[in-house]
Amino acid sequence: MKKQRELRVDLGDRSYPIVIGEGLLKQPNLLTPFIFGQQVLVVTNETIAPLYLESIMAGLSSYQVESVVLPDGEKYKNLETLNTIFDTLLSKKHNRTTTLIALGGGVIGDMTGFAAACYQRGVNFIQLPTTLLAQVDSSVGGKTAVNHPMGKNMIGAFYQPQCVIADTGTLNTLDDRQLRAGLAEVIKYGLIADAPFFNWLEENINHLLDRDPEALAYAIERSCENKAKVVSLDEREGGVRAILNLGHTFGHAIETYQSYKDWLHGEAVSVGMVMAAKLSNALGWIPENDVSRTKELLLKCELPVSAPKDMSAEKFLELMSVDKKVLDGSLRLVLLKSIGHAVVTSDFDPNCLNTLLESRVPEG
Amino acid sequence: MKKQRELRVDLGDRSYPIVIGEGLLKQPNLLTPFIFGQQVLVVTNETIAPLYLESIMAGLSSYQVESVVLPDGEKYKNLETLNTIFDTLLSKKHNRTTTLIALGGGVIGDMTGFAAACYQRGVNFIQLPTTLLAQVDSSVGGKTAVNHPMGKNMIGAFYQPQCVIADTGTLNTLDDRQLRAGLAEVIKYGLIADAPFFNWLEENINHLLDRDPEALAYAIERSCENKAKVVSLDEREGGVRAILNLGHTFGHAIETYQSYKDWLHGEAVSVGMVMAAKLSNALGWIPENDVSRTKELLLKCELPVSAPKDMSAEKFLELMSVDKKVLDGSLRLVLLKSIGHAVVTSDFDPNCLNTLLESRVPEG
Repeated sequence: MKKQRELRVDLGDRSYPIVIGEGLLKQPNLLTPFIFGQQVLVVTNETIAPLYLESIMAGLSSYQVESVVLPDGEKYKNLETLNTIFDTLLSKKHNRTTTLIALGGGVIGDMTGFAAACYQRGVNFIQLPTTLLAQVDSSVGGKTAVNHPMGKNMIGAFYQPQCVIADTGTLNTLDDRQLRAGLAEVIKYGLIADAPFFNWLEENINHLLDRDPEALAYAIERSCENKAKVVSLDEREGGVRAILNLGHTFGHAIETYQSYKDWLHGEAVSVGMVMAAKLSNALGWIPENDVSRTKELLLKCELPVSAPKDMSAEKFLELMSVDKKVLDGSLRLVLLKSIGHAVVTSDFDPNCLNTLLESRVPEG
Repeated sequence: MKKQRELRVDLGDRSYPIVIGEGLLKQPNLLTPFIFGQQVLVVTNETIAPLYLESIMAGLSSYQVESVVLPDGEKYKNLETLNTIFDTLLSKKHNRTTTLIALGGGVIGDMTGFAAACYQRGVNFIQLPTTLLAQVDSSVGGKTAVNHPMGKNMIGAFYQPQCVIADTGTLNTLDDRQLRAGLAEVIKYGLIADAPFFNWLEENINHLLDRDPEALAYAIERSCENKAKVVSLDEREGGVRAILNLGHTFGHAIETYQSYKDWLHGEAVSVGMVMAAKLSNALGWIPENDVSRTKELLLKCELPVSAPKDMSAEKFLELMSVDKKVLDGSLRLVLLKSIGHAVVTSDFDPNCLNTLLESRVPEG
C-alpha cells in the first residue's frame, strides 16, 4: 500500500479535501462519503473512458449511475458540448440531489464543474483528475468554464467540488506531451510563490520526466499546497489569486488565436511564462539569469518557449484585451519580482510590452 | 411627483433595494449608484426596445454603453440566445467590471441575470422589469435561468441583482394578456402566504384590471414584500422558498409540453394553481369554497383554469418528474392548507393526484 497524501482547501463551509495517491480510483469508498443522493453522472472523454470508466461505474452500482463520454480536446470545451451533459441529465431524470463526477483532464473538469454549477441552479460534484495538469491545477479551486470563440474560459462560474481525488497511477497512461504540458503548471508554482520548489524542480526535473512515482506525488502535493493556499485567501479572484495566472494572459491569447486546436494549454502557458519573465527582465525587475533558468527548465521538458511565428503583436494585444484581468480598459499582467514572487500589475511601461511582442524571433 | 415606494431584500452582503414608482426609467440617477465600472450592456427585446431603449441609453451616455435586442418570447429563452449576449460582450470587449441591465419582462430578466452570473464568472447586474409579472416576481430573488427542451429553467444560477427598479408607468403599454398573466403571480402571494391580501384582491381586482395606478403600485409593493420575506429566509431554495412555486410544477409541465410557445408563463401558473387547490381539496385540506374563490378570482382576470385538453395524465407525470423539487425520485408539490398558507410536501396520496390528472374535463 503506497502512501496516501491528503490536504485541504480552506473555504469555510465550502472547504474540501484533496487526496493524492496511487490506485485511488480503485477505491469507491473514497467517493461515496461525498455522494448525498441516489443519482450519479460520470462525465469523461473518449480517451479516458476505455481506461477507467467501467471500473468507476462498477464501484458505484448501488446508485442510479449514468455516464457521458465527450470528444477529447480543448476545442470541444464550449456551450454546445456542455449541453450534451444537460441532455443526459434530463433524459435520465436527474434531480437536484444528483452528483456529477468529472473523470478526466482539465477540459472535462472545467465543463463538468460548470454543468454542476448550472444544472437546476447547482448540484454536487466531485473531481477525479487524470492528467498531471488537472491534478496540480485545474481540479483545485473551483474555477469552472467553457470557452467562447472570442475568448478562453469566458463563460463560467466559481463553483467548488466536494472533493478532489488524484490517482497518480493515471499518469502512467498519460502520453509524454500531456505530462510535459502538466509540468508547465508545476513549474509555475515555483515561479510565482515557491523559490525552494523551483530549485527542487531544477534538480529533479529528470525524475519527473522519467515518471518516478515518489517525485511526481511530491510535486503534485507541493503544487496543490501552493494552489490551496492562494485560493483560500481569495476564492473569487478579487486580488492575489490572479498570480496563479502567470503566463496565462499570453497563453490564452495563443490558444484563442489557434482556435484551441494545435497547442495544449500547458504548452501555451509555457510560452506565456517565458514572455512574462522576459518582460519582467526588460522592466528591470529580474536579472537575465532568471529568464534563462525559467527557459532552461521548460526546455528540459521539451515545452515551447516562443509564440507561433505568424502571430503578430497586434493580434496579441487584441486577444489580450478581453482577458479577465483587464479592469476598465487597463491590461493587467502577472509579472515576476523574483523567482518565487509574482505580482499582478498594470504598472508597467507599455512600450516594453510592445517591444517584447514585436521583437519575437523564432527560437528555442 | 408620484409617491415612490422602496423596500429591501435582506441577504447579508447580497442585500439590495427594490424601488417602485411611476416614471423611474426616466431617472438615470437611480441607476448610476449601482454601476461600478465604465461599461454597461442593456439587454432587451424587440417589443420593449422601441419604447424605452433610446432614453435609457441616452441617460447612460457617460459610460461605454451597448445594447442587445433579443427576439421576444419564452421560446427564445435558451442557451443559443444567451450566447448572443456573450457575443456582444466579447466583441465590445466588456471586462469584469461591466454592468448588465435587464430591460424587459421575465424572460429578459432571467437570461440577463444568468448571462451576468456566467460572463467572466460573474459580473454586476441590474433589473429594470417592464411587465407586471417581472415586477412582482421574476426580477426579485436572484433566480436566473434558461430553458432546456426537456425542462423549464433547468440551466441557471442563483445570482442577485444590485437593485430592482420597477417603473409602474411601463404597465400602461403592457397588453391586456400580459397584465393578466402578471396578476396570476400577484394572486399567488395571497394564496401562499397572505390571506388579507387575497381578500383585498377579491375586492379590488377590477381596479387592477382597469390599471388604476395606485392599486397596481400597492399590489406590486405587497407582492414584493411577500417575495422578499421568503427569499431572505431561504435564498437558495433549501426549504420554504419552494412555496413561491405554487402552481409552477403543473404550470412548467404545460409550458414544456407546448414548447414554451402558446401559453404565457402566468397563464400556465394560473391553471397550475387551480390544480393545486383542487388536489388540496381532494386531500381534505381545504374546503371546496376555497377552490371556487381561487378559480373565480383567476376567471375574473380571464386567465385559463384548465390544462390543454390534449395533454394526458401520463404526459403531466412524465414532465413533472424532472421538476427541480423532485428529491430522490419523490415528487414534491406546493399545496394549500388554507388560503394564505402553502406547504411543500411529498406527503400526499398519489391516487388523488392521478385522479385529478385523469379527471380533467374542459371547463372555464
